[in-house]
Amino acid sequence: MLREKVDQAIEILKEKNIDMWLTFLRESEASYDPCLNLILGTNITWQSAFIITRNEGTIAIVGSLDYERVRLTGLYDDIRKYVGSFREEFMKVLYRINPNKIAINTSINDYMSDGLTHGMYELLMEYTAGTEFQKRFISSEEIISALRGRKTKTEIERIKSAIQVTENIYAEVSDFMQPGKREIDVANFILERVRDLGLETAWEEISCPAVFTGPDTAGAHADPTERVIQKGHVLNIDFGVKKDEYCSDIQRTWYFLRDDEASAPDAVMRGFNTIIESVQLAKEAIRPGKLGWEIDKIARDYIVSKGYPEYPHALGHQVGRSTHDGAGLLGPTWERYGNVPYLPIEVGQVYTIEPRLPIDGYGVATVEEMIVVTEEGCEWLSHPQKEIFLI
Amino acid sequence: MLREKVDQAIEILKEKNIDMWLTFLRESEASYDPCLNLILGTNITWQSAFIITRNEGTIAIVGSLDYERVRLTGLYDDIRKYVGSFREEFMKVLYRINPNKIAINTSINDYMSDGLTHGMYELLMEYTAGTEFQKRFISSEEIISALRGRKTKTEIERIKSAIQVTENIYAEVSDFMQPGKREIDVANFILERVRDLGLETAWEEISCPAVFTGPDTAGAHADPTERVIQKGHVLNIDFGVKKDEYCSDIQRTWYFLRDDEASAPDAVMRGFNTIIESVQLAKEAIRPGKLGWEIDKIARDYIVSKGYPEYPHALGHQVGRSTHDGAGLLGPTWERYGNVPYLPIEVGQVYTIEPRLPIDGYGVATVEEMIVVTEEGCEWLSHPQKEIFLI
Repeated sequence: MLREKVDQAIEILKEKNIDMWLTFLRESEASYDPCLNLILGTNITWQSAFIITRNEGTIAIVGSLDYERVRLTGLYDDIRKYVGSFREEFMKVLYRINPNKIAINTSINDYMSDGLTHGMYELLMEYTAGTEFQKRFISSEEIISALRGRKTKTEIERIKSAIQVTENIYAEVSDFMQPGKREIDVANFILERVRDLGLETAWEEISCPAVFTGPDTAGAHADPTERVIQKGHVLNIDFGVKKDEYCSDIQRTWYFLRDDEASAPDAVMRGFNTIIESVQLAKEAIRPGKLGWEIDKIARDYIVSKGYPEYPHALGHQVGRSTHDGAGLLGPTWERYGNVPYLPIEVGQVYTIEPRLPIDGYGVATVEEMIVVTEEGCEWLSHPQKEIFLI
Repeated sequence: MLREKVDQAIEILKEKNIDMWLTFLRESEASYDPCLNLILGTNITWQSAFIITRNEGTIAIVGSLDYERVRLTGLYDDIRKYVGSFREEFMKVLYRINPNKIAINTSINDYMSDGLTHGMYELLMEYTAGTEFQKRFISSEEIISALRGRKTKTEIERIKSAIQVTENIYAEVSDFMQPGKREIDVANFILERVRDLGLETAWEEISCPAVFTGPDTAGAHADPTERVIQKGHVLNIDFGVKKDEYCSDIQRTWYFLRDDEASAPDAVMRGFNTIIESVQLAKEAIRPGKLGWEIDKIARDYIVSKGYPEYPHALGHQVGRSTHDGAGLLGPTWERYGNVPYLPIEVGQVYTIEPRLPIDGYGVATVEEMIVVTEEGCEWLSHPQKEIFLI
């Protein structure tokens, strides 16, 4: 699988006419470069360079004690080990390859392409001081974004498999939930199922699953509380698993019927259906070449046109080895998102679609579906929720 | 515990006459700032600032969806949430405090103080462009190094407790090992004990424990293999646990007697005893104010004087929440270590002492002990290995 991604990286370098992609880091257990699980899959201690070139294979420069473990990955053709000084081996490689451009992992916009720390950046500038190479550094943003975004068939299969598990667990928790149980009981039920399956949650357990019941709940990133489910509550869950290193990320919404109710009240139906309709509109608009913000705007405007406040986040993000897989975002053009809502949608990308809106007096309605971009548009990866679940 | 560390940080700011320490980050699950587990203890998604000031308390600026979870930590007096733009709230805080210096998490030398990515650094420069504040940025290196290094009583107790568990497991594995077992069997035995205790290993399981048996083993960071223990092997293990968030890191060495042996051969005894003597010499030299390289040199020179090659790493590193806890290092003045071997030893720091040497034809001899620095010198935290264990 890593071999596939490294080969794909070489193809991307060719496509983008970049001679060298350099990942420079140290002590990866303390300070991880998020691209490392695409091009190495293990940790290193000393200053290390992982170099993928367009025409001259792959090269690693690592401390002598890290040598054996890097060798065992089988991903680097030429592994150079050092004891005292990284600089010497590194400069030799630069002079030999003499790359037209050197892509480094720094990005203002995409945190997944921003693994280089500022201290390491300064060190790199010190090593290359007075050379021509300093003019050739560029951001690896477009390499990493393509590499993470364009999923191989194997990757799509793994994501589908993670989604399947998630949907199964949602079916089970639907049987488990009832008024009187607390958010934390629901979360624990789900976590136990994940552990039984020998899997892990897609993001940290403290908020995966996130469970929110009733009005005035805290917001999407707070953790499940002692709050008790009551009749008349809208409840939503945000949850995913990581299976074979790939993630799912799905939200579902329930309503707990009052004694005299056979269906959800009109206000709840109207809120929930607005969410479903906005998801459908967004899904129909997705196609390669569209920009992320254009898709976000469709769902956002629709929800606002129905009299609800706009959701305080992006409509959708990419999913892969991480639930927030970085780069191209179906998000609004807010300052904090930088340029990522302006990136074009590409074939093979996997996105969530996850609008939200508050239903006064009841709770929050959300669904989160997952899609994969195709030549013509996009396809569901999840089985979309069409009606609010009633309990 | 985090409250203790945040209060300690305020004291350190007073001592060093720095008005503000700023930790600026985003998507901490993808790209973690290693100081976050000292000053927050949870994750955030959007651009966030965690600000500890000398005189005006603690301030957090976070995305609206991260607000609740930051509030629940109880560590920040003033939490400002935003939706669209981080910049506005951030600049308001800067203008109100008007700090003399702004320490940021960037460091060429200390990876534990180098959590700021280069992309985020550039963003910070963009936000503060054209203001006086740009001249006031300094590295938080000395703050973080003091904060991580100077252990509180609670922290020392936790480290001792992690050491106790490790020593117990070493006693058990000593009963388990015998010729015919493989390195990987020994590693699995230890991992099972760690899981039985509901703990985790101090560093990633793939090389914790590290187990090396016999001559021509791979080196300190390679993972346990199928290599079979044989009579006449020197075997060493590097292992630690994380308990209540604090780590141990200890190495021990065994010798497997041949059928006709009642004790280890002279060559093995001589190598092992050289290690023990060098540890003792280093330990006796440690005291506040000494520089790390001075201690390293004592052990290194001693080993070389006995005719062995010098070890290809530092004599010792600090231990705390991480096994490689950063900053002040008992290490040689090699380029790759930057300035950290030149930092003075301080009271309350916890170091390992871990020389190594190869014994031709037998294997590698190592011990790794842990000490805490006191006013007068230092004290053992581990129960030092004095004699090679015979099986």
